[in-house]
Formats: sequence, structure tokens, C-alpha cells
Amino acid sequence: MVLRDVQSEYDLRNVYLKRVGVKGVRYPIVVLDKTNGVQSTIATINMYVDLPQNYRGTHMSRFIEVLNEYHLEINPKRVRDILHKLKDVLNAKRAVIEVEFPYFIKKQAPVTKSESYLEYICTFEAEIFDSRFDFLTSVVVPIHTLCPCSKEISDRGAHNQRAICKVSYESREMIWIEDIIEIVEKSASAPIFTLLKRPDEKYVTELAYDHPKFVEDVARDVALELKKYDKIKWYRVEVESFESIHAHNAYACVTSDELQG
Amino acid sequence: MVLRDVQSEYDLRNVYLKRVGVKGVRYPIVVLDKTNGVQSTIATINMYVDLPQNYRGTHMSRFIEVLNEYHLEINPKRVRDILHKLKDVLNAKRAVIEVEFPYFIKKQAPVTKSESYLEYICTFEAEIFDSRFDFLTSVVVPIHTLCPCSKEISDRGAHNQRAICKVSYESREMIWIEDIIEIVEKSASAPIFTLLKRPDEKYVTELAYDHPKFVEDVARDVALELKKYDKIKWYRVEVESFESIHAHNAYACVTSDELQG
Amino acid sequence: MVLRDVQSEYDLRNVYLKRVGVKGVRYPIVVLDKTNGVQSTIATINMYVDLPQNYRGTHMSRFIEVLNEYHLEINPKRVRDILHKLKDVLNAKRAVIEVEFPYFIKKQAPVTKSESYLEYICTFEAEIFDSRFDFLTSVVVPIHTLCPCSKEISDRGAHNQRAICKVSYESREMIWIEDIIEIVEKSASAPIFTLLKRPDEKYVTELAYDHPKFVEDVARDVALELKKYDKIKWYRVEVESFESIHAHNAYACVTSDELQG
Amino acid sequence: MVLRDVQSEYDLRNVYLKRVGVKGVRYPIVVLDKTNGVQSTIATINMYVDLPQNYRGTHMSRFIEVLNEYHLEINPKRVRDILHKLKDVLNAKRAVIEVEFPYFIKKQAPVTKSESYLEYICTFEAEIFDSRFDFLTSVVVPIHTLCPCSKEISDRGAHNQRAICKVSYESREMIWIEDIIEIVEKSASAPIFTLLKRPDEKYVTELAYDHPKFVEDVARDVALELKKYDKIKWYRVEVESFESIHAHNAYACVTSDELQG
Repeated sequence: MVLRDVQSEYDLRNVYLKRVGVKGVRYPIVVLDKTNGVQSTIATINMYVDLPQNYRGTHMSRFIEVLNEYHLEINPKRVRDILHKLKDVLNAKRAVIEVEFPYFIKKQAPVTKSESYLEYICTFEAEIFDSRFDFLTSVVVPIHTLCPCSKEISDRGAHNQRAICKVSYESREMIWIEDIIEIVEKSASAPIFTLLKRPDEKYVTELAYDHPKFVEDVARDVALELKKYDKIKWYRVEVESFESIHAHNAYACVTSDELQG
Repeated sequence: MVLRDVQSEYDLRNVYLKRVGVKGVRYPIVVLDKTNGVQSTIATINMYVDLPQNYRGTHMSRFIEVLNEYHLEINPKRVRDILHKLKDVLNAKRAVIEVEFPYFIKKQAPVTKSESYLEYICTFEAEIFDSRFDFLTSVVVPIHTLCPCSKEISDRGAHNQRAICKVSYESREMIWIEDIIEIVEKSASAPIFTLLKRPDEKYVTELAYDHPKFVEDVARDVALELKKYDKIKWYRVEVESFESIHAHNAYACVTSDELQG
Repeated sequence: MVLRDVQSEYDLRNVYLKRVGVKGVRYPIVVLDKTNGVQSTIATINMYVDLPQNYRGTHMSRFIEVLNEYHLEINPKRVRDILHKLKDVLNAKRAVIEVEFPYFIKKQAPVTKSESYLEYICTFEAEIFDSRFDFLTSVVVPIHTLCPCSKEISDRGAHNQRAICKVSYESREMIWIEDIIEIVEKSASAPIFTLLKRPDEKYVTELAYDHPKFVEDVARDVALELKKYDKIKWYRVEVESFESIHAHNAYACVTSDELQG
Repeated sequence: MVLRDVQSEYDLRNVYLKRVGVKGVRYPIVVLDKTNGVQSTIATINMYVDLPQNYRGTHMSRFIEVLNEYHLEINPKRVRDILHKLKDVLNAKRAVIEVEFPYFIKKQAPVTKSESYLEYICTFEAEIFDSRFDFLTSVVVPIHTLCPCSKEISDRGAHNQRAICKVSYESREMIWIEDIIEIVEKSASAPIFTLLKRPDEKYVTELAYDHPKFVEDVARDVALELKKYDKIKWYRVEVESFESIHAHNAYACVTSDELQG
């Protein structure tokens, strides 16, 4: 028995669709790891292609078939292969993939050198359109910020809080996520750790107190470091602090487009 | 035409269901407000009844019909009416309702008296079973905590952070949510505000520095205040701080059952 | 005592910040309602301005002060006033506001005319930059979709599911959200209701079975209706169905830029 | 320099705390896998102990140190070791751990046998108190349900939707999660798959249409299967369907306590 292919039927509405595909696919993947070669993780994946105006629908199952071929190694090169394959099997001009995954790094506490893992949420967003290939990497780094205004105006103490800094960038060649994280952690009032013993807690408390930073400061300091990085073509830095004196957050954003000087 | 009532059919499996009903219903409701009489808000509502072993299913639409009659005023007395009505129209022995809603209070900044609204997430959880009626109120209060250990061991500064304190209680007579919130905010290192001008920021920074509190301290201090409150039959205090030196949280919980002394 | 204004200090880093401000502010607001004049609801609000390269920080409290003046009526005209005010009090060239809020409409079931409320998540996103004012409205409409392929290839039944259609648009004059919702609900396999009695359930089941729609179909049909609407300058239609045979979603997106014919 | 141990100071408030500890720790772990021996995954972990009334605070860093020793193999036996260790290093009478993690199983489509991964969210919740050890395993299985009422009253079609069935159980000896999943998937209108080709889609559409199930039916059928399982001491079955004709969910719950007959 041949089952009718409804998706391939001719569509008379004459409406081109920019994106059709699958969203929120959860899949085990393997990514590159600077220290250990590779790291197993779990991704949330969106994959899209465009759909010409004369076709009724895309074939959703083919996205998963392509993912099946490649999920055991997701890296910039493989992402490009996936997109070419999607364009191919789905007769598309455009193919898009978005892969979000937690990435773990073993860190040493600053004084006792106690080790623990910290999670960084990373994203690959890539698109092929005709001959053009765009690849954007993002990493969300949890940090500590201490308010310069609060420190300055108060006789003692200063409010501080957990914050995140999300760096998104396009690069000329591959950059290790570890290198971006290092830039961000140095630009914060203090880095964040999963395991801190008392001497470490003393150290980060004083480090933060000695390096008060607004979200604006962190955004600018990260931007200036990224600017020195020849491999980076474009970037956006977003800093959001979970203000400890408010129930809402403070936010700052800079992109390389607007950077002055 | 008469449509068959599949739900009312006789069920041979002989399995009594403890809870059947609707979950995640979003509905506009009106609640009592100590200052203004009433407050319009938006609730997420779950409603359940039990189902005897000989019926195949409950009638989900009747839950919404009952809600339609009562949503314009949700308060402890009305909740009891809703549960009686649910038992009635659904031939149940047990009826349960859970209503979660944001509640806003206009607060004054400590020095400049600038006004702004702060959100407190509240919950009513009530159950009727035979002649027994249980009613649990919860309120989540965002607060500020400053770490006593960090203050003690550091030469300057102390890490602090946003935290929440959730108080759940059964009471002999109605208690204004505002009164519980006041207890919690006094037991924190400092309260939280949506609008703080510079003199206010100086005030709360120093207030917190002068009142360092572990999550354990906040839990105990709130518990001791609630213990004095004659109207309260039972309570649970949970404190969770979004540690600013970690990416995970610290947690403490006490219930009136375990309270010593 | 004069408290030092750290934010206003001269910044030597020479980095212009595109956006600085507050994020995730929860506030009670009042919006326009086609049937009842106004509707009370609760918003999640982000507000940003740009920050010239020579200033160290923005004044976060002023955002809340501006919101305090206007939150009792948030509509396109008022949003423009808010943005002008933000630019003014924060010496900015650019001001941005994003307001997300649940909006409730009382709907009648198709056969029994039983009434109930349904929630639609709406967003206003507006930006002033120099003399330019952009205002984007979005509404998320929960709908029902039935798969044309599944219906065609199966001897009986067809898989169907809850889906959402998000319409975002810029318009020449104000459009009632209710009118956009009507377009979407007519373009789905069936609309969604909070209260359906048995005759209504029969009606929507058969309606959906008689109107099978891929996400691609809904996107195209909504787009074609919006295209007829003279008041609309630009739009994007996104449809996402929570596929009942998968744990992931199907997605389609069309914008007025790509519309052919 | 010796840093003062504030946590160990004598507390005069005389309040025993039921639980203190860390919440929301994200950590890479390894779990047992029926087919492959082990599986790498990522957990969200809460760990608590009780705190006697005479101590001011617990030592949060020790929780992470214990986790560091054991995270590379989390299974029922190891969980018991972790709890003993926590009691030991934190001088507690009670120790609790909650570990939630995604677990992936490679499944074959019913007709074409195409393979793909499906995610099941699992939880281990364990507590040691004096000599008592409690261990609860939960697994959330995404399923497909088709409404018997809608099928019965409609001339054609029947509404159906994605649903989840969460089974929580205590067992006398270890049970493979895979075995619980199999019971649930057989009790649904149809199982769910990540990859289905057209012949598979026809199969599951017809399978579901031929096996209409209320949430009540799924709860009861799973319960009856679990009842046959000698290894299981106690269980709770919760079914929640994301109703495709509503924006809210239908829910049913049964525990082994209430099971009749």
C-alpha cells in the first residue's frame, strides 16, 4: 500500500514560509571539551528549513533522521554538515539549527584548590542560506557582582548578587568556550564556584568588595577584552544581575556594532 | 439527540481514584485586600474530587461551571462554598482546590518613602473530606540575606543575595497576608523593595550588614514569631537563598511539629 | 549629607551601551478592553535606554518612577508617553519598553453558549530612537490543530493537539486584540475553550476533523487574512503545535516580508 | 590564621530545623542503563540534613564534597552511601537527597523500526532517619491519550493529545525504569516516539483511535499492572493530559493505599 504524501501536494495559496521544522527536540549529544577531548551532554534542539510557496508542508521526520546521523558529535564543522544535509533532503534554500546544551567545567576554588563542577549554558545557532553560512556561539556565565554605588554611599557593606553574563559571538576560527568564560569571570566582581571552603569564601568576598561592578561595567570590560580578540568577527555581551535589594533584575547590553573608540 | 454519558458508565476495574480534575486553569479572580478591600488578580487553579471505583470518569466541565459561580471573590469562606458545591455536583466524598495568585502591596521605601508595588505569590490549598475542612495559606516573600560567616571571616564586605521565605499555615481565624509578610520582612537581613532612591539604598545596605542571617536564622526567627501568634494552628517556614557566590541555593525548613522548647 | 552619584561619573572606557535598564519588573497594570472598556491585569516589564560612552551607569530607580506614573493605563499612546519620559529623565537617545501581560476574554461555547474565560498572552514592544517610534503588538492564541497527513493515511481517526499561534504586528492605527484573535481562531482546525459541554465537545471534535491543518496551513491562512487588513504594516505569524504523537513540537513561521503573490 | 566557624556556634533559640542544605545543584552524573550498562546524564540535586537546636548553621560546602565522591555513579546503593556519609560529616540524624535527571531510551518506531531517542525525566528521592531508609523512584512517561467521550459522541474523529504519566514507587528490590515505562506505554492510547515515518504515523493514529482512554483509565490500568508486580511496595500514578480542546489539563491520581478490590 502506498500512503499518500500530503505534504508534497501542490499548494495554491502562494505563501512562502521562512521557517518550518521541529522545536524542542531533547537529544543526547557529544560536544568538544578543551581539557578532555569530548563531553557528553543533553541538548534542546530546533531545526528549520524554508518552504517554497508551492509545497503544502515539510517532512518533519527527516529532521530527526538527519539528527540521528550526527548527534554523536555536535561541533561547528558538523553543524555545517547537518545544515547542508537538511537543505538537501528537504529541498530547501535555507536551513537553520539551534542547539542549547549545558556544559560543565571542573574548577578549582581560589585558595584551597578544592575542585567542583560548574554549569555553563551554551548555544550554537547556525543558518545556511544559499552560499552563506552564519554560526553564532553563546555562553551564559554565572558571576558575582557587587554594586559600586551601594559600596560608595554606605558606611559599611555593599549589596551584591548572583548575575549572569551571556556572550554571543561569530568567529573567524573556532574559539574554546573556556577562553570566553575566562574573560567573563575576570571581568566580574568575582567568579562563582560550586564548592568554596571558608578560606575561599573569605577570598571571594574580599575580591568582590575590592572590585565593585555595575552590570554596565561588566558589559564594557568584557566587550573591551573581546575587542582585542582577532578571531572574533562580531559579538554581543548581555549582563543581567538578580539584584539582591529588588525582586527585579538590572540589565546591560553592548554589541560590537556600537562599540566606540 | 441524546449524547451518551461515557463518564457515568459502570467501571469494572474496581479502582478508587483519590483525585481527578482540572489542572492549570488560568482565571481572573478577586481576593481580599487589607488596605483596599479587594484586589483583582489572576489565578492558576487546580480542582479535584475523588472518584468512586464504579464510575468510569468525572465530568471535567462541571469544575469550570463551579468556578464561574465563585471566581469573582476567592477567600477562605468562598473556598469552602466551592468545595461543598464540587462535592455536590460531582457526587464526591472529597474535594480539593489549589489557587495560586500574585498579590501586590504598595510599599514605602525606608527613607524617602517613595512608593512602589511588590509582588508576593500566594496560594490557597483547601480540601473537604467528609466533615473535615483543611485550609492552608502560603505566601512567598522575597527578602535579602547577608551571610554571617562571610561577614565574620572577611576583612571587608560580606556576600549577600536575594532570597525567598515561604510561609505556609493553617489558622483558627483569618489572618491578613500583610501580617505574615511583616513578620518575614522583619526577620530577614533586610526587606526588598521595587523602588529605592540613593538614601534608601544606603539604608538597606547598612541594615543588611548589621543583621547578617543564614537561611537557618531566618527560618528560626520567623518560626519564633509565628509561635506567638495564637490564631495559627500549624505552620511551615521555608527559606531559600540564591547564593551569590554559588550557582545553587541554600535552603532551610522548619515546621511547628518539630519546634523545640 | 549628599550621597555621591557614582552612576554619573565620567567613564573613560569609551564604550557606548545599546541598552541598560530593568528587567522582569512585575506590576499591576490596566489595559484597554474592547467589550468592557478596561481590564486589570499583571505585567512583566522590561525598560531600557541607551547609555552614552562617557557615563558610568544609568539610574535604575527612575525607570520605576516613570512606571509609577503610567501603569494604571498601558496602551499604545501611553507607551509612547512612557518612552518620551524615559528618554527625558535618563538623558537617552533611545528608550525601549517590553510589556507582557495575560489578557482574558469571555467566550461562548459553540453550541450551548456556556460562558468561560480564556487567557491570551499579549506583548507590547516599543522603541523610540531619535524621532522614530516603533510599536509591535503580539498575541499568543491557543488553538487546536488536526494533522491532515494523519487523517489522510489512517483508516480512522487523526492525531490532533493543542497548539499556539503567535501573531506579532505593527499597525497604522490601533487594532483590537480581539480582532486578531478572531482571525487566528477561524484559521485553526478549531478554537479552544475553557468550558465545553458534551454538545460543544461533539461540535469542536467534528469541526477539527473536517478542517485538518498543518502548522504550515495555519501560518499561511492567518497570513492571508492579515494581508487583507489595511491597518497592518508588518506582521509575523508563528505556529507551534505540541504534537500529540511526539514529545517535541512542530513549528512554522511566515513574515509579511517574504509573502509571495 | 584560623577562620571562625560561625555555623558551629551555640544557638540559643532552641529551634530544631527539619531540613537544611543545598538546592538546585547541577552536576554531571552516571546512572545505570538496562541496555548499555551505564548512561551519562545531568542532574539537578537537592541535599538536606536536619540541624539540632543548639547549632547555628550547617556546613553547606560539605554537601558538595560528598557529592564529589559519588556523582560518577548514582544508583540506589550509592544513594544510601551518600546519605550515610552526609549524616556522618554533618552530625545529623536525618539526611535527604533528591536527584532529578533526564534518561534517554533508544526506541524503534512500531512499523518501520526507525530508531530514535526519547527522554524520560526520572527522580530518586531518598531519606535516612535513624535506622530507617526510604527510597522513592519516579519516572515521567510522555504518552498519547484519545478521549473516549469525544469518540463516542462525535460522528467522526476524536480529540487526542500529548499527556504525561508519572509513576512514583518504592520497591523491595531494584526495578529497571525501562520496565515501568513499558507498563505505562501499553496502558496509554498510544506510546510516543521522536521519529515516526508515514506507516508508523498511520499505525499510532489507528492504535490510539482503537484505544480511547480518559486520564482516569490510564491511571487505573497502570495501577492494576503495578499491583501485579511483587517487587513494588507502594506506588502513586499521576496522569496529566494537555487537553487539545482546552488550554488547561485533565488530571487523575491513584495510590496503592486507596486501591480497592
